[in-house]
Amino acid sequence: MPLAQARHERLGKRIALAVFSSDAMSSVAYATEEILLILMLAGSAAVHFAVPIALAITALMVVVVISYQQTIHAYPSGGGSYIVARANLGTVPGLVAAAALLVDYVLTVAVSVAAGVAAITSALPEMSTHKIVLGVVFVAAIALANIRGVRESGRIFAVPTYFFITSFALLLVVGAFRLLTGSLPPAAPAQSTAVEPLTWFLVLRAFSSGCTAMTGTEAISNGIPAFRPLESRNAAITLGWMAVILGTLFVGITVLASMLGVLPTATETVVSQIARRLFGGGVLYYAIQAATALILVLAANTSFADFPRLASLLARDRFVPRQFATLGERLVFSNGILVLAGFAALLLVLFGGETHALIPLYAVGVFISFTLSQSGMVRHWWRERASGWRWRIAINGIGATATAVVTLVIGVTKFSHGAWIVVLVIPLLVTAFVMMSRHYEEVANDLSLEGMEVPPEFQHTVLVLVGDVHRGVVRAVQYARTLAPTATVRGVYVETDPARTSRLEEKWASWGLGVPLVVLASPYRSLLRPLLDYIDKIHARGDDQMVTVVLPEFLPRRWWQHVLHNQTALLVKGALLFRTNTVVADVPYLLKR
Amino acid sequence: MPLAQARHERLGKRIALAVFSSDAMSSVAYATEEILLILMLAGSAAVHFAVPIALAITALMVVVVISYQQTIHAYPSGGGSYIVARANLGTVPGLVAAAALLVDYVLTVAVSVAAGVAAITSALPEMSTHKIVLGVVFVAAIALANIRGVRESGRIFAVPTYFFITSFALLLVVGAFRLLTGSLPPAAPAQSTAVEPLTWFLVLRAFSSGCTAMTGTEAISNGIPAFRPLESRNAAITLGWMAVILGTLFVGITVLASMLGVLPTATETVVSQIARRLFGGGVLYYAIQAATALILVLAANTSFADFPRLASLLARDRFVPRQFATLGERLVFSNGILVLAGFAALLLVLFGGETHALIPLYAVGVFISFTLSQSGMVRHWWRERASGWRWRIAINGIGATATAVVTLVIGVTKFSHGAWIVVLVIPLLVTAFVMMSRHYEEVANDLSLEGMEVPPEFQHTVLVLVGDVHRGVVRAVQYARTLAPTATVRGVYVETDPARTSRLEEKWASWGLGVPLVVLASPYRSLLRPLLDYIDKIHARGDDQMVTVVLPEFLPRRWWQHVLHNQTALLVKGALLFRTNTVVADVPYLLKR
Repeated sequence: MPLAQARHERLGKRIALAVFSSDAMSSVAYATEEILLILMLAGSAAVHFAVPIALAITALMVVVVISYQQTIHAYPSGGGSYIVARANLGTVPGLVAAAALLVDYVLTVAVSVAAGVAAITSALPEMSTHKIVLGVVFVAAIALANIRGVRESGRIFAVPTYFFITSFALLLVVGAFRLLTGSLPPAAPAQSTAVEPLTWFLVLRAFSSGCTAMTGTEAISNGIPAFRPLESRNAAITLGWMAVILGTLFVGITVLASMLGVLPTATETVVSQIARRLFGGGVLYYAIQAATALILVLAANTSFADFPRLASLLARDRFVPRQFATLGERLVFSNGILVLAGFAALLLVLFGGETHALIPLYAVGVFISFTLSQSGMVRHWWRERASGWRWRIAINGIGATATAVVTLVIGVTKFSHGAWIVVLVIPLLVTAFVMMSRHYEEVANDLSLEGMEVPPEFQHTVLVLVGDVHRGVVRAVQYARTLAPTATVRGVYVETDPARTSRLEEKWASWGLGVPLVVLASPYRSLLRPLLDYIDKIHARGDDQMVTVVLPEFLPRRWWQHVLHNQTALLVKGALLFRTNTVVADVPYLLKR
Repeated sequence: MPLAQARHERLGKRIALAVFSSDAMSSVAYATEEILLILMLAGSAAVHFAVPIALAITALMVVVVISYQQTIHAYPSGGGSYIVARANLGTVPGLVAAAALLVDYVLTVAVSVAAGVAAITSALPEMSTHKIVLGVVFVAAIALANIRGVRESGRIFAVPTYFFITSFALLLVVGAFRLLTGSLPPAAPAQSTAVEPLTWFLVLRAFSSGCTAMTGTEAISNGIPAFRPLESRNAAITLGWMAVILGTLFVGITVLASMLGVLPTATETVVSQIARRLFGGGVLYYAIQAATALILVLAANTSFADFPRLASLLARDRFVPRQFATLGERLVFSNGILVLAGFAALLLVLFGGETHALIPLYAVGVFISFTLSQSGMVRHWWRERASGWRWRIAINGIGATATAVVTLVIGVTKFSHGAWIVVLVIPLLVTAFVMMSRHYEEVANDLSLEGMEVPPEFQHTVLVLVGDVHRGVVRAVQYARTLAPTATVRGVYVETDPARTSRLEEKWASWGLGVPLVVLASPYRSLLRPLLDYIDKIHARGDDQMVTVVLPEFLPRRWWQHVLHNQTALLVKGALLFRTNTVVADVPYLLKR
């Protein structure tokens, strides 16, 4: 579609909530479980810490969201951590934020899809042997949906998101009602034997695992330009809604799990167990599982909107290859989508499609970027000192401090469980960004026309590679003669079989169109060596020598016939690729059959 | 090395025996086992048929070998089935023989390697979980050895072959001695319950399985040119030796297995069991296992000598793509080697690296080619009617009849167990050969200069694709101007961002070297569409229109920088590939850093 239509691709608040918040909200499906999984290590009694931990995370989220609402208003054209950190703290902090986010986007896709598959296998245990395949298929499907375009993505994702919100709200209401009326049949709460003492470190580790619930908060502020005008206002409102819904669902599910005494098992998720207790095995149970699976698999979509957007910002600033800046055919960022899908699928395969295995890597990146972004905002207000700058600094300062502390907690408690991978990858990415940026800068200087004098004319030699004399070769010679005066055109024959030479020379005499033929001896039967030596000899005459190698190439009518031709041409092109002062020109000859 | 050295790559008889006979001889390692495996189906009593079956196969081998010795003398430059059948029976029989042999060469590699791995896992059961990986690694290693050159292959293979012959001879001598002196501790012979009645069909199926011992007999007559002069005489003598050694070992092992009451098991090969009984678990036992594994893994080498040779014959006659005819850098047939290794590895993976699973597919092809080759020889003598033609016809006639009957027996008894795959593949291959041959013939007619008139001069338009104006572009424009009069050269700029156009036009005015600039509007931001449309417009002017697209391309200094450039050039080349009357010329620009 034409550029002029891009504006109509903008999203309304309701659709935007679905597109940008499914990641954050979907974490309700696994965040509680990941908290319980750590607490369980200290035995069943320790799981009572789950509710306070969930409340603490929700409080932290409120701080971050309020902090981000300020950012959205300050950066209406998109206030992602990369932009804010780079503008206010400098290039390297900006790149650290960007690298941290890119890593976390990949993990969001992997974790969400893995958890979505877990929801399916909880309901249909016979599918559990196909976990990895299912995950990879889902990743591919989401990538495809995104390559088709952002508007259609909006529609695809709105229905499942609201289905998820509605069905989980129902779960909480039914749960609250049955708990209050005492109409729930009592069940022996699951027991878990302590394998570790209940330490503050363990509680903090559980808190770190639960913080995965907050990934995706960044999405909306990164995606402001996708909102309908007034973009900032709409984005800030949507962020608020998101926080309220997510907080309610997360605390609600954690309280339910705690009251019902549900503990994670290897085969069934916590949400699945809760739904089974409250709804039995009926339609409502399957609705909850379907909603969970859908929102999770689609949550990955948040990253598919944000990863390419961030990559294109980096490409615009020359920190990643330019092809990430290219808009695809349908105004979406196809290259970023493909890279994201590839890495996410790789992670799923490497970690066996297990949510628990991926969680320790997750959320490190996002909290690094939160911290940098909020710190950047503090600097921003300090520089501007517009009206109300004191309380604005206070808000973002609290956000920055809180997220900095949490980043440290997550890094330390999860380090040995996998966070070290992320801690290793982020500086590597930043180094790569800086190297690429430096290269592009040097190239720009290299290519600058400033002070350039037009070099003297080339001395042009045109060589037609001849294996046999036939119509295709005659055509190539004819073409070569249009390129340069006949005196500088040569037919070149590499003599791998001396018996054939005289016959070929005879044919050339009739059909060479007056162009001289050079026969290169090849005692080692190599085609390339003599040709390359000959070209080197021409180049040795001086820097102004330019050689064009004309290759007769066949165009067969059918696909399978291609493999039967042009092998020599391919070989020659490979050998001459990236040689300076050497140009290769294929002259196609259309085969009739 | 130069062609003149090729002669020195020739093999002496002793080395040739190792290179060309390891396939045939190595079958001693599994042929007995495969016979017993079928007979066991009718219970332990039926296994006494093994010795008569082995004797029958040996007798058949003597017939075939004598028959082949005649062929070797009649076709001194290589008397493979393809050549003999094609020359005497016609093209299609020749192609059937060729297809059958190619299929069997692949199977030889797969079966030999699988059996070699079985020898290893018999001695070292803890390796049995890595069967497939081991097999694929061996295939790759042999392929590599062959790509390095035939002389070195000879040396590599001589030691293991003679080690095998010596150690198996020792096994037979020790076995005979201990059996005759009765010094062997009596062991309860393994029992097997009958699951099928003992029918003639079953006995014939066992015979068919045992006939795998005869694959590889063809190798020597295919490889005559690799022998030292007098090639035919040396080849015929080597073939005789091979038959004597193979027959002795095969019958010997079968008799030993029978006398010792050894039956195949899932975890240990028959040879391993015999060696364990005779030598205990000591050094000699491991020597036998090592010799077996080595000869088997190296037996695959016979195919690596013969498959590329046959493929190159087919390529010379234009039945397979020409690249199979190309001699590699070290006078070996690299493409054939790679294809063979690829298919063999595929078979190993598909059939789980199990010898027994592959055996039903094996030997069908080789017996088809035996039959066609011997029938061809009958025709040959009949046509020539030189002195002694009557008894020559008799010998080859007996060979042809015997192998024809055995082909039928093998086909029928193994059909449902896997031979159907081969029966399906051979006609498919023949069809492909014929199609390719027909295509090459049509192309030759197409390209024939007969009756050709030199077409009128091209109307040449040169387009320089411009994304920005910099030193690389100036260089490309300069190059384009040498190709054609300035009036027919154009700079082409596809306007994906109208804001940049005027700035670019300004730069072009200073640096365009007088060449006009064409700006193509692109409302859909596609780079390719407007360019292709523009080229189409030029071509629409007439058949004599030739367009050269000049692409400025960057040559970075470091490998990782390549990915940062030339993406557009790649895209354009892809789109223009295989378009008639359109030539693409990359003008490289060397980046300083």
